[in-house]
Amino acid sequence: MSIESLLVRRQRVLGKGMALFYDEPLHIVRGEGTYLFDVAGRRYVDMYNNVPCVGHGNPAVVEAMARQQATLNVHSRYLHEGIVEYAERLVALHGTGIESIVFSCSGTEANEVAVHMARIVSGRRGIVFSNGTYHGNSEAIGMLTGEGRRHATSPEIAAFPFPDRYRPLEAGLDDAALCARYVERVEAAIGQLESTGAGVACLIVCSIFANEGLPDIPAGFMAAAAERVRAAGGLVIADEVQAGYCRTGRWWGYQTTGFTPDIVVTGKPMGNGLPLAATAASRAIVERFRAATGYFNTFAASPLQAAVGNAVLDEIERLDLRRHAEQVGSFLKAALVERAPRYDFIGDVRGRGLFIGIEMVRSKAGREPDVARAREIANRLKARGFLTSNAGARGNVLKIRPPLVFGRADGEQFLEAFDATLASVG
Amino acid sequence: MSIESLLVRRQRVLGKGMALFYDEPLHIVRGEGTYLFDVAGRRYVDMYNNVPCVGHGNPAVVEAMARQQATLNVHSRYLHEGIVEYAERLVALHGTGIESIVFSCSGTEANEVAVHMARIVSGRRGIVFSNGTYHGNSEAIGMLTGEGRRHATSPEIAAFPFPDRYRPLEAGLDDAALCARYVERVEAAIGQLESTGAGVACLIVCSIFANEGLPDIPAGFMAAAAERVRAAGGLVIADEVQAGYCRTGRWWGYQTTGFTPDIVVTGKPMGNGLPLAATAASRAIVERFRAATGYFNTFAASPLQAAVGNAVLDEIERLDLRRHAEQVGSFLKAALVERAPRYDFIGDVRGRGLFIGIEMVRSKAGREPDVARAREIANRLKARGFLTSNAGARGNVLKIRPPLVFGRADGEQFLEAFDATLASVG
Repeated sequence: MSIESLLVRRQRVLGKGMALFYDEPLHIVRGEGTYLFDVAGRRYVDMYNNVPCVGHGNPAVVEAMARQQATLNVHSRYLHEGIVEYAERLVALHGTGIESIVFSCSGTEANEVAVHMARIVSGRRGIVFSNGTYHGNSEAIGMLTGEGRRHATSPEIAAFPFPDRYRPLEAGLDDAALCARYVERVEAAIGQLESTGAGVACLIVCSIFANEGLPDIPAGFMAAAAERVRAAGGLVIADEVQAGYCRTGRWWGYQTTGFTPDIVVTGKPMGNGLPLAATAASRAIVERFRAATGYFNTFAASPLQAAVGNAVLDEIERLDLRRHAEQVGSFLKAALVERAPRYDFIGDVRGRGLFIGIEMVRSKAGREPDVARAREIANRLKARGFLTSNAGARGNVLKIRPPLVFGRADGEQFLEAFDATLASVG
Repeated sequence: MSIESLLVRRQRVLGKGMALFYDEPLHIVRGEGTYLFDVAGRRYVDMYNNVPCVGHGNPAVVEAMARQQATLNVHSRYLHEGIVEYAERLVALHGTGIESIVFSCSGTEANEVAVHMARIVSGRRGIVFSNGTYHGNSEAIGMLTGEGRRHATSPEIAAFPFPDRYRPLEAGLDDAALCARYVERVEAAIGQLESTGAGVACLIVCSIFANEGLPDIPAGFMAAAAERVRAAGGLVIADEVQAGYCRTGRWWGYQTTGFTPDIVVTGKPMGNGLPLAATAASRAIVERFRAATGYFNTFAASPLQAAVGNAVLDEIERLDLRRHAEQVGSFLKAALVERAPRYDFIGDVRGRGLFIGIEMVRSKAGREPDVARAREIANRLKARGFLTSNAGARGNVLKIRPPLVFGRADGEQFLEAFDATLASVG
């Protein structure tokens, strides 16, 4: 099966327009740890995929999955100890205030639950969100997608400009003054929702603004924004689908950006590939949601989700992947920061832990986003056996977000390839 | 771990109000084929669960799942042959017109995609749906839930009374006249949407009105309703999440109720417990949807979904479960129909294949729904080792919907338990 004929079959039966990475798509057939292998047996270092957090094909996860699927996999209207134990472990990973969980199958579903919770508890409808984000693909959550990629609008949503020290709202301000400007824009979004009569049900943010491009946030912004939303009667939702699960070197993104959410949404890495997501909050919030909705999700809170989810937590603990992500990420970021001055097209290097963004620009002075260069570098790195992508609100940020098991030696090999690639693109 | 202390832990960490079946919840620990086993080792015949369609713990599915998870499980932006092959098999199970597929993780997500497709293609917003249905739990799809259980309303939705020969809209009509009355109500829903300016994007129906209680439908209603919706510029969505996959003894519910959908939604049984759902339509519809949305679903269209989905199709074919469901279902329904005259509280026995509903009433003459009796019978059958539930728009229908591997001997044992149970409730 050639790549060309597979592409033709794929376009026929899945429809043209289904996204594929890279100018020449990769035909992947196997994964192991941090590595992916194509149909020709070529090895690639995976520096993109956060879902297989404990490694592609992790044997402990495979074993837990197979054992549970062979033993029992059924919906949540029977009693089963696995999901209770798993939920207890998850809430224990947060501070006080996060006590109970609603499980679902995807980040979209979990964000739907979070917004619904906030609407029930607040008695209001409006959603404050960042203008460069993405929280999911349903009708209600897809509306919160960044400008230009949004499918619908509504008097019940109001975006604020995401905080960014690299391209600040206003030039020449110190950190405190810039923070104040951004907080004013959150206040404006709140005012907009109050003027339409929607009121403020919630602020929903990725705790590290991952889709926005991992901006450096003026100190104090997150806590101040959360405070303003609460003062208006709304709840604070941390979307930890990308930020959580040790990605930043801390368990949760909100620990790195300094705020305390009322509702925490998790997804992608939870099941190492099994569809699994969760919305966590106080017991009071969860019980008001359950009483109002009778929420049921056929595939969620199942013995299979529990067994796989527990196995992933076991592996994170056994391999101490939080500390590992912190250490390998620090090494990698420092090496990239050290390289930045050598290239006029590297505008900024940002991120924490194993989530790093490299902002590609036409020139350091002008800071004009250079999407073509970010794409070209991702394609050239792929040709050298390293998988990244371009992302961010403007599409010009080279996104580095490997499985948490990505090692220092992988990082060193990447840096060699990165240097060679940058030299080749001049 | 006693049931009581597990319940306390569950209520704390998952929240009180999360549904459990039966007056005394079942603590299930193992499943095999048609059987579930509780913590005390007691065996129950599963006559409720449609998700494990090829049997609890089906070894071929477990093996496919484990093999693929060990080999590769990654998102759909790389080329992989598995999902292409799986999609090709699925579309081949429909007649012409269904050509391409968008995969997702749940029936809710797949119905979101279907409604979004219809809105894009029609250029309209309005949804026509049955007043006793359930299509999912998101904001947009949860609105389509039956009266009294709906969380929100909108000028973009209009319900029609589901067709029902047992409790007809108007008494004393022949089938053709009754059909005409119901079609008039669909026309009224269309008119309502046209008057609000929403227009008609789609009709969405479970092809066999499963949540409504499997009503007998006046002949010709489905085709006529579909025709009216198309004449108003809308598309026809068959929600086959419960009706499809050989449940009725045919591959698809729409084949038994006589209409041709533009969009087909499938879910529950596709992955035998793995979260897996699909929205299928013409290639033109799918490509317009992809172009307009850039839809991406992290966990969907994955090698894991493909491997498990293919293994389920293999098992359905190997065991000829379509014919099996038809034959065992016919036997079971005939035996139940034969019993109905003996009990004044059995108002009606309905259904096709391995999906049977027994309508419990206070009296045959009055036809008053008797929810308490349906509940009591489900609880007593459970005490005898047979798992059913009460369902339907009024909650008074004993719902029988076992795994497709449910055998004739299981049915014979059930009939004995059913006779003894009915005798005991008098």
